[in-house]
Amino acid sequence: MTDVVAPSGREEKILGIIETARGKRPKFRDPCITMAHGAGGKATGTLIEGLLVPAFANAALDELGDAGIVSVAGTDVALSTDTYVVKPLIFPGGSIGELAVNGTANDLACAGARPLALTLGLILEEGLDSAVVREQVAVMAATATAAGVSIVTGDTKVVERGSADGMYLNTAGIGVRDPRARLSPSALRPGDQLLLSGAIGAHGMAIMLARGEFELMAEIESDTRCLWPAVDALLDAAGAHLRCIRDATRGGVASVLNELARASGVAMLVEEARVPVDPAVGGAAEILGLDPMQIANEGVLVAAVAPEGAERALAALRAAKAGERAVLIGECRTEPTGMVLVESGFGGRRVMDQLVGDPLPRIC
Amino acid sequence: MTDVVAPSGREEKILGIIETARGKRPKFRDPCITMAHGAGGKATGTLIEGLLVPAFANAALDELGDAGIVSVAGTDVALSTDTYVVKPLIFPGGSIGELAVNGTANDLACAGARPLALTLGLILEEGLDSAVVREQVAVMAATATAAGVSIVTGDTKVVERGSADGMYLNTAGIGVRDPRARLSPSALRPGDQLLLSGAIGAHGMAIMLARGEFELMAEIESDTRCLWPAVDALLDAAGAHLRCIRDATRGGVASVLNELARASGVAMLVEEARVPVDPAVGGAAEILGLDPMQIANEGVLVAAVAPEGAERALAALRAAKAGERAVLIGECRTEPTGMVLVESGFGGRRVMDQLVGDPLPRIC
Repeated sequence: MTDVVAPSGREEKILGIIETARGKRPKFRDPCITMAHGAGGKATGTLIEGLLVPAFANAALDELGDAGIVSVAGTDVALSTDTYVVKPLIFPGGSIGELAVNGTANDLACAGARPLALTLGLILEEGLDSAVVREQVAVMAATATAAGVSIVTGDTKVVERGSADGMYLNTAGIGVRDPRARLSPSALRPGDQLLLSGAIGAHGMAIMLARGEFELMAEIESDTRCLWPAVDALLDAAGAHLRCIRDATRGGVASVLNELARASGVAMLVEEARVPVDPAVGGAAEILGLDPMQIANEGVLVAAVAPEGAERALAALRAAKAGERAVLIGECRTEPTGMVLVESGFGGRRVMDQLVGDPLPRIC
Repeated sequence: MTDVVAPSGREEKILGIIETARGKRPKFRDPCITMAHGAGGKATGTLIEGLLVPAFANAALDELGDAGIVSVAGTDVALSTDTYVVKPLIFPGGSIGELAVNGTANDLACAGARPLALTLGLILEEGLDSAVVREQVAVMAATATAAGVSIVTGDTKVVERGSADGMYLNTAGIGVRDPRARLSPSALRPGDQLLLSGAIGAHGMAIMLARGEFELMAEIESDTRCLWPAVDALLDAAGAHLRCIRDATRGGVASVLNELARASGVAMLVEEARVPVDPAVGGAAEILGLDPMQIANEGVLVAAVAPEGAERALAALRAAKAGERAVLIGECRTEPTGMVLVESGFGGRRVMDQLVGDPLPRIC
């Protein structure tokens, strides 16, 4: 939440300038790779939209969803991948193996596809204790069983000591797109309601504290979990009215909202006071100078719903596992196109920007 | 080709002992990860069969093919993944980006599935020159176009300087299993003929020489290429008679043959003199004390074909792109179960063993 904009007559002009800048596809001009390119914020967006998407040009990729959709013998199959480089490998509430299964399963779920099968690519560092491998393999197996997904093929590579931090994991997954809804990042319309499934910021803060780099003691556990039950409930209750669902991982809720606003060409207005943040998370974030809206989650989703389906969607989310604290946080507007504004408890409005830089490296 | 066994009366007894040992599922007991676990030979097999497959127990994985088969709305979909950690990133004849596309496409092709779509997971090292990223992205786009496959979704992570060698790539892919054949590593029967699509050892030797660790000068280019045209030709000519197709990557032809012999419970007899090895590759391998049969390829496949289809399969392979030098190298026998024997030009027989240790680290 940078770029404070006074709610004055100048507002429209300033927003107009930013809006024009936003409308253009970003260009990737950085001379070298920085940690920010992996943080899920602005730099990541520039790399993806400025280099990768134009190079690999195809309709599935142009959608910029968390999953690509491929037609297989007349069936829409969602395909997704994520690489996991979290540090440390084990942290309060979860571990790299749990993230690797739930993270990719959640990307499929948020594309409206029940996770079906995963692939697993392991990069192991020479000298890694086999007990660590055993433990994470057991965690992955248990997490996959809980998520109802099978790990059907894999690959193992080993790199020399110092060439990786213990292990990096990649999972890719497929799922059949659910017929109850057609979700797309560009489907949002003015008037759509924005739902959030739970309290934010727990995952990112849990990782930061687990590293022990700060002299901060707080009991914060990652929120890593499988989101399919929540998505399933949403599809059941409001399928036809659902526009898009996204899990708010790297870059947090702020990055998801900005991406959707830009992809759909709508504005968003979010009421800050409605967004649930646990006191321990909020306190730690304040001390570290971080905005909870930009902190990664692993078990929180944002759903955009047409107004006529919003009430039922919210009720369904609240009745679903891990959705008890779901809330309506805001809505889509017409202007300023492609931007997210946040209204503070005192009535002032600011631009809620995407994450810039990388204050939280290697959180997934 | 270790474990020299004299063709004497002792042969049967020795082979019997080895055979009993082979029949059991290997146990993963190593205290820590070594480079050999990533080399595609015996240690990799122990890790996969002794730890990963039992943990993730499911039918698709138990097959131990290069791809898992998943039923999607009644259609058999092949799913495969590979991680690429090749060093250096660019080498004579190819680069990491080319391997990342062709390697996974080839795993699908060898499962009898036309490659349809890929996912891409990038791990980039902080400080990596953007020009390197641009170049590899362009290579991947061009290779994907040539292979007729789309990169439909991806993920980018960045790790700190020193935590990766420039870049590691992961691709996962899907393809629809071709109805012309049902291929399986356990489908080989005594009498089946063994075909090899071309000269072996070029990829591994090209990488070794590119590293400049040896004072050896030879013009050897990697054989990296898309194998779908060759597989397509085989399916067309001998679909019903094809038992299994495998690309002979890490661990080389020796590891592929051993895996198939064990999975199918057959013996194999290979005529060494028939296996094509280019003089530069053969010479360099001899100097380095390596067996070309254990050196990695990126554009060579092994096909097991029922005797009645072998002639047509060989002719089709020879007429296909990059199959001009295809040859019949041997056949399946009944005894000794699960083992591969090689007959030298002088009539002696040895056990052709899988790769042990890792003489060629990080070749893909």
